[in-house]
Amino acid sequence: MKKHYEVIVVGGGIIGTSIAYHLAKAGKKTAVFESGEVGKKATHAAAGMLGAHAECDKPGTFFQFARASQQVYQQLTIELKNNSGIDIRRHDGGILKIAFTESDRERLMRMAALDSAEWLTAEQVVDMEPDVTKDIIGANFIADDVHVEPIAVCKAFAKGARLFGADIFEYTPVIAIDTDSGVQIQTALGTVEAEHIVIACGVWSGPFFKQLGINKSFYPVKGECLSVWNDRIPLVRTLYHDHCYIVPRHNGKLIIGATMKPKNWDERPELGGIKAIIEKAKTMIPEIDKLKIDRCWAGLRPATVDGNPYIGHHPINNRILFAAGHFRNGILLAPATGEMIRDLIIGQPVKPAWIEAFKLERTEVVIE
Amino acid sequence: MKKHYEVIVVGGGIIGTSIAYHLAKAGKKTAVFESGEVGKKATHAAAGMLGAHAECDKPGTFFQFARASQQVYQQLTIELKNNSGIDIRRHDGGILKIAFTESDRERLMRMAALDSAEWLTAEQVVDMEPDVTKDIIGANFIADDVHVEPIAVCKAFAKGARLFGADIFEYTPVIAIDTDSGVQIQTALGTVEAEHIVIACGVWSGPFFKQLGINKSFYPVKGECLSVWNDRIPLVRTLYHDHCYIVPRHNGKLIIGATMKPKNWDERPELGGIKAIIEKAKTMIPEIDKLKIDRCWAGLRPATVDGNPYIGHHPINNRILFAAGHFRNGILLAPATGEMIRDLIIGQPVKPAWIEAFKLERTEVVIE
Amino acid sequence: MKKHYEVIVVGGGIIGTSIAYHLAKAGKKTAVFESGEVGKKATHAAAGMLGAHAECDKPGTFFQFARASQQVYQQLTIELKNNSGIDIRRHDGGILKIAFTESDRERLMRMAALDSAEWLTAEQVVDMEPDVTKDIIGANFIADDVHVEPIAVCKAFAKGARLFGADIFEYTPVIAIDTDSGVQIQTALGTVEAEHIVIACGVWSGPFFKQLGINKSFYPVKGECLSVWNDRIPLVRTLYHDHCYIVPRHNGKLIIGATMKPKNWDERPELGGIKAIIEKAKTMIPEIDKLKIDRCWAGLRPATVDGNPYIGHHPINNRILFAAGHFRNGILLAPATGEMIRDLIIGQPVKPAWIEAFKLERTEVVIE
Amino acid sequence: MKKHYEVIVVGGGIIGTSIAYHLAKAGKKTAVFESGEVGKKATHAAAGMLGAHAECDKPGTFFQFARASQQVYQQLTIELKNNSGIDIRRHDGGILKIAFTESDRERLMRMAALDSAEWLTAEQVVDMEPDVTKDIIGANFIADDVHVEPIAVCKAFAKGARLFGADIFEYTPVIAIDTDSGVQIQTALGTVEAEHIVIACGVWSGPFFKQLGINKSFYPVKGECLSVWNDRIPLVRTLYHDHCYIVPRHNGKLIIGATMKPKNWDERPELGGIKAIIEKAKTMIPEIDKLKIDRCWAGLRPATVDGNPYIGHHPINNRILFAAGHFRNGILLAPATGEMIRDLIIGQPVKPAWIEAFKLERTEVVIE
Repeated sequence: MKKHYEVIVVGGGIIGTSIAYHLAKAGKKTAVFESGEVGKKATHAAAGMLGAHAECDKPGTFFQFARASQQVYQQLTIELKNNSGIDIRRHDGGILKIAFTESDRERLMRMAALDSAEWLTAEQVVDMEPDVTKDIIGANFIADDVHVEPIAVCKAFAKGARLFGADIFEYTPVIAIDTDSGVQIQTALGTVEAEHIVIACGVWSGPFFKQLGINKSFYPVKGECLSVWNDRIPLVRTLYHDHCYIVPRHNGKLIIGATMKPKNWDERPELGGIKAIIEKAKTMIPEIDKLKIDRCWAGLRPATVDGNPYIGHHPINNRILFAAGHFRNGILLAPATGEMIRDLIIGQPVKPAWIEAFKLERTEVVIE
Repeated sequence: MKKHYEVIVVGGGIIGTSIAYHLAKAGKKTAVFESGEVGKKATHAAAGMLGAHAECDKPGTFFQFARASQQVYQQLTIELKNNSGIDIRRHDGGILKIAFTESDRERLMRMAALDSAEWLTAEQVVDMEPDVTKDIIGANFIADDVHVEPIAVCKAFAKGARLFGADIFEYTPVIAIDTDSGVQIQTALGTVEAEHIVIACGVWSGPFFKQLGINKSFYPVKGECLSVWNDRIPLVRTLYHDHCYIVPRHNGKLIIGATMKPKNWDERPELGGIKAIIEKAKTMIPEIDKLKIDRCWAGLRPATVDGNPYIGHHPINNRILFAAGHFRNGILLAPATGEMIRDLIIGQPVKPAWIEAFKLERTEVVIE
Repeated sequence: MKKHYEVIVVGGGIIGTSIAYHLAKAGKKTAVFESGEVGKKATHAAAGMLGAHAECDKPGTFFQFARASQQVYQQLTIELKNNSGIDIRRHDGGILKIAFTESDRERLMRMAALDSAEWLTAEQVVDMEPDVTKDIIGANFIADDVHVEPIAVCKAFAKGARLFGADIFEYTPVIAIDTDSGVQIQTALGTVEAEHIVIACGVWSGPFFKQLGINKSFYPVKGECLSVWNDRIPLVRTLYHDHCYIVPRHNGKLIIGATMKPKNWDERPELGGIKAIIEKAKTMIPEIDKLKIDRCWAGLRPATVDGNPYIGHHPINNRILFAAGHFRNGILLAPATGEMIRDLIIGQPVKPAWIEAFKLERTEVVIE
Repeated sequence: MKKHYEVIVVGGGIIGTSIAYHLAKAGKKTAVFESGEVGKKATHAAAGMLGAHAECDKPGTFFQFARASQQVYQQLTIELKNNSGIDIRRHDGGILKIAFTESDRERLMRMAALDSAEWLTAEQVVDMEPDVTKDIIGANFIADDVHVEPIAVCKAFAKGARLFGADIFEYTPVIAIDTDSGVQIQTALGTVEAEHIVIACGVWSGPFFKQLGINKSFYPVKGECLSVWNDRIPLVRTLYHDHCYIVPRHNGKLIIGATMKPKNWDERPELGGIKAIIEKAKTMIPEIDKLKIDRCWAGLRPATVDGNPYIGHHPINNRILFAAGHFRNGILLAPATGEMIRDLIIGQPVKPAWIEAFKLERTEVVIE
């Protein structure tokens, strides 16, 4: 194994592999160290909605960043296929954010300022998607909130990075990070040094933050999901209500998720969680309980105190960067995060508002 | 392939393989023809309770037959291990038939005449099984209603039969049965004749009955099940209420089942069915929804008009026999069915009451 | 269940569902009867190469039919996505038919007459695909021989047919076909009659041919396959030599197949077969043995005496049609077969050469 | 979560759970911290041979320890079933260590001094196991080298420990161990202190050794395995030659393994490894290549410099203990290791020879 890289990325999920892809493509000699398999943790569990709007209900820096990342995805579909041979399975239907009650509608209406959302009446919704329950009072339709297949994106980033010269070390946990003279990591394969190290391992970033003197806590919000074979429902658009969703994939499956279980680190789906999401899905599509189950799984979203990710330099040591805490938005934000970290490392300009919003030394307001 | 056998068995589920095992052991040159894989249909889906009492609430011929079969299992555990190398995973905990209401209790009390059932108060039950809900008013405990692993029993019968000289043809559907001169079957491997043919393919026996001039209809009652990893609940006894059960396996899993969906031929579990059994299980063990899901499946129980299986000779052609329609009791009744068919073929005495109860030309009373 | 359809299709593999799709789209009230799950037999096992050239080495009617079907696939990619929501995963790399020896080259040269094949030197091949072994002496490159994901095509046909009004009955074997007065089938769901019945169940069509008075035998040629995760080899084109292939999928897997085991009906992969295809793959890409195995499987190709499928009317009863025996070419020929059967039923013109080549009453020359 | 335990065990494989079981049973308040799932790493991958002789070819301390552990297993079979409800699937057939050549025989003859091994001629072997190749010249038969199902043993230890009051924290990696004042660990769930900490995480123990000032390196020896369905071969005894084996399980499967790939940390089976073990198995049982493949996997054996595990106290800090580096013998040695660590902690006597042989500060001789 080489003993020196320009950049070491700690974590081989969609954030880490996006960073590696963008750096390797820019000519940087990059290595990813992943404790298990590329994309097999939170990435694998995600539904892949590029929900810039689904997750925000007001304009602002986070929304701008999310929209920018969404737009990067447009070019990535073709670029990644060319560079890696992997199709990220982009699906263009958009999202219907359903309202069952007036209070649902009011909440959705806050989004009305955004020109990318369109309010539809119940009739319009049922006309577009005849299997949706008649119990709704309307929906916000967001055409731009498409979806992709997260594991495909991640594998494409990883293989693309490799073909641009990066090394991807799977089953190679980073045991410690030393910053005494230069920066280097310890692994079972030996010690490796680098110009820059990027911490990008989701909810498992906590210990590295601590080792590096950063007092930020991450906590997991476990989400349980399942998929069914959809051989009959002509659903084109993702349905979304109250953090739950039904996503129609191009492979003929529906992805249904997800529960929200804070501080539960166990990555296996529980009986109670599976029951809860079946019940929730049935409120959106009554006929869904006839569909055949494919499989169940769970994953851990990396939550931060204020709900925003940490993306940026170590406050003191410029050779260390962070890209973690993307909560429900890791898939959506991976491209913009990869570009931002690349630009910080190679010295390209980055929007000051983004640096401010995501820097580690920001003042954080606890969200409910 | 040989062109002649003493006995051909149509169907490689637990009934067909038990018959083949008992005949091969008795020296008969036997062949099993199975359209798919041995034990992969209803056998595979069953929980394996040897519930002579769970399925009957009064003494009678069926109960006697069930008890006899249960007793054969005692010797089979060792015999099959010796003859096939396969352990059928007998589990001796017994069954608790739970009562939530007075009407539950009354129904269970009909069983009181049987000396093998014992009424327990709620306190006694919770003392034995502390994770059972406090909402019960008592339970019938039946120590003899143990359980086994159905696919293991079936594979053991099949391998044992093979080692006694039988041939097992998997992926070889029987296309037609000819009875013009002698009896023979047509398969993709050619025509094969025999002294006797036994129809033993569960709910898929219908067409063969019809071809052979027997006007009996079978219908499936689909059951959906799931299993969970039980790493913490010290459950020793099977719990049972209203056709649903929680079975503690020796491999550390709980088997939870089952729905009852008559005339549904689809062997895949549906979302609605999975939800229903999770809900039901939670009424019996409230903490069960913390357990991690292992997998889901479904199977088809072969139902008959009067609820009893058909076991016996063709009314006219003595060379043809039937062993099908065991409904929820296939695993329980497989050994006694195998012995009975063997005895009918080799000319050993069979209890007249059993012949009467299960013969094809009986008068059937439709059950609700 | 309805008791009457315009067309009944027996078999829910890629041939049966293509026929149903094309008929339903043309307005015919159609039903498919499938004994198990749609696409779970030979379709599921196929690699999906649209190898009009890979399977033929000379021009002729079969080649013309294959090329026509290949061209239908071009429009189907978009059409099926629109009509079913399912992406058939078309992959445009083409096929490299590798020559290791002079005799390989001579055989490939017979294809030279076709303007769609291009001979490449070893240097050219390795330049295009650097991981291919240096032991080759050249390859025929056929850009048009792309590949698709067979199960996706089949599910898209089935769902598309359903959304055009067809009924798809899974887990519903056809027990018998009656032609005494009109045509009708018997199933566990009852008797169903139709204007036309199409037999399209691959190697399992034999018994129906026989029932209908047609003396044609089918036999299976079992093929064992496996897939690996390709995280590093930048393979774009399918490699092919001596009936074995390595197919790069857009999901980042390589499909490797396949053995040829005539008259083996067992659909499970055997140890010996898996070893054989690993060895074969290694002769094409030496580094392939470092890749991680994904899974193994097997399927049965429906072979006929002369290597051509039967597509056409019953010689006497015009209401019965056949579409079976596509051997290694089921995925490739499914669209053209679906169109041809549709045209025969609705009375559109069909190329006389195709009718001649595939009719049941042709003179068959046994192939080696 | 509690903040204090008497003993913390780091690692939830078979070594860690055995230690926890023995301590909890002895009344110690114990917690296990496992970074993933109990038993899902090397334990899960092992074949489960209790091969005291298979791994040693001469008497000595290691052999004595192995024999002692083997004997503990005898009582554990019943004890664990009673205490956890889990059956460890003991299989009593013994091992045949096959000789193909004179040099094989000579190596096996070194074992002749042991009264528990018995030399058999080729004829005797084939008489016992008719499917073994005729190419052998004899075999050593060791009746005591039975096998168990490793994951079952580990789950039984874990559940048993839990029911004796231990806590098992899955998905809870230990981030750091502090020894400044008392001993404590850091985890995502917070800081936990204890009287004693035991490091028992196999090849992943290295970083903890280093943190605790112990300069011992571990390295993995990756082993690839597969299983097949054995529906016909009446194999009773495990076959063994040159580190490869065929183990007949009571569930009707054969386990076939294993490759030896030092310093390969990737836990996924590779194509080349699977091919190698199929070839090797075929040399022992020629007919094995007809069997149907079940699945493939891989695992990492934790190797040490001199081939012996480290079991004992930290040289300086008496509150820290180690139990790691069991190489190919983890399943075999788990019970004796659990007892030895328990005795060291509760102050029971331990054989001085064992303490000497396995202590950390021993003089190590590098093995080939």
